[in-house]
Amino acid sequence: MISKNQIKFIRSLQTSKFRQIHGQYLVEGEKMLNELLNSEQNILHIYGLLDWVQQHETIIKKKQVEYTVVSESELAQISTLTTPNKVLAVVEGTINAFETNSVLEEGIYVVLENIQDPGNLGTIIRSAEWFGVKAIFCTANTVEVFNPKVVQASMGSVFRMNIYYTDIAEVLQHNAHIVSYAAVLGGENVYATKFSNSIFLLVGNESKGLSAEMINAAQQKITIPSYGKAESLNAAVACSVLLGIIRNSVS
Amino acid sequence: MISKNQIKFIRSLQTSKFRQIHGQYLVEGEKMLNELLNSEQNILHIYGLLDWVQQHETIIKKKQVEYTVVSESELAQISTLTTPNKVLAVVEGTINAFETNSVLEEGIYVVLENIQDPGNLGTIIRSAEWFGVKAIFCTANTVEVFNPKVVQASMGSVFRMNIYYTDIAEVLQHNAHIVSYAAVLGGENVYATKFSNSIFLLVGNESKGLSAEMINAAQQKITIPSYGKAESLNAAVACSVLLGIIRNSVS
Repeated sequence: MISKNQIKFIRSLQTSKFRQIHGQYLVEGEKMLNELLNSEQNILHIYGLLDWVQQHETIIKKKQVEYTVVSESELAQISTLTTPNKVLAVVEGTINAFETNSVLEEGIYVVLENIQDPGNLGTIIRSAEWFGVKAIFCTANTVEVFNPKVVQASMGSVFRMNIYYTDIAEVLQHNAHIVSYAAVLGGENVYATKFSNSIFLLVGNESKGLSAEMINAAQQKITIPSYGKAESLNAAVACSVLLGIIRNSVS
Repeated sequence: MISKNQIKFIRSLQTSKFRQIHGQYLVEGEKMLNELLNSEQNILHIYGLLDWVQQHETIIKKKQVEYTVVSESELAQISTLTTPNKVLAVVEGTINAFETNSVLEEGIYVVLENIQDPGNLGTIIRSAEWFGVKAIFCTANTVEVFNPKVVQASMGSVFRMNIYYTDIAEVLQHNAHIVSYAAVLGGENVYATKFSNSIFLLVGNESKGLSAEMINAAQQKITIPSYGKAESLNAAVACSVLLGIIRNSVS
């Protein structure tokens, strides 16, 4: 059983404002819960159908997570999914602060400016983990990482990736030992680029690309050459393709 | 003005069944209409807000396309979008037949098995055009190419790409001069693969990947190496990253 107040509270977490006020977010569905239970995230409460709870009793008890058995109609009332999928969890999550004057270790970093589509951000997080990216830095106007569609599209990578919302110009400035590459149209052919071992890969908004300020802040401009009439690639695809090419050229 | 019968007919084209019966599909929004008007597609009718029609009168008349000026509320009644975007077109479109015993010319081809998400198919079409893919072959259980979400995610590439729904095994069999590479987990490291100049790139379903039959039908198995704990990449991303790597290794 779940109370009206609980339903109201969980529903409030569907909006960015209340996620930030409470420092909590939602994770849904069997697959995502498996990822979550195997992560270091602090799970505050699980609302699951009886069969799901019975199947996962051992790990829930081992992790000492509070839980409530709910009916299908109760789950439908708190779910963000069109087809609710057995279980929903409330998880502790606050946007990470980042000391903009800290010095980053060697590695590949992704920098996102004003990415708006939650599916794209989630997909980028998933690809970033796949390719061993150390952290993702987002401008403040990038979609919020705890948006349920971001969490879903990341397929669990959001639980393991370091993601910061911060002043990008300052981060780049304090880390000139890491070479910054802006993904643009009309830059250097990425296949001919000699990449540094330490990289900031800058990717911009879905329709506008990177801002002039961001492009100017970067040390190099790179482009995936085109062989057709398509104007651009999807932003998450462009970021992932570049990571795939970069990954092969750094040691 | 738009009649009730027209509204009913256009709405019917939101479903795959009626698109196939009528051989027609829908294209929506300013950006997509620009792509459409610059393509070879046969546009049957345009329903646009007055300002859109006035701005595009020259090209509409030059192409001799029938059109109707509609109000915002009329557009909302026929639109598939949450926020209708000025214009909707009805376009002729039938699934291309493919002579499975025809012999393909040299080049890169994408083969999709059971891709379910329309956004993924659209994104793959967009990437395929970007990387100069000659054609895309889909299994019959792959999502239909004229689904409005496929059209939208392709950002117009669907108007220019050759896409066939056909018996893949037969196509591969009749074209053994084109080397088939199955995208799998645990195959050969794609960065170490010496690619042929003529390639079938086989990509499977979002959650299940390629079927055993399809993997067996392929000549080689390739994998994008992982540097994290993510289980897999998004299917459209995996296809695009592979195309990006392949593109650099073929002449």
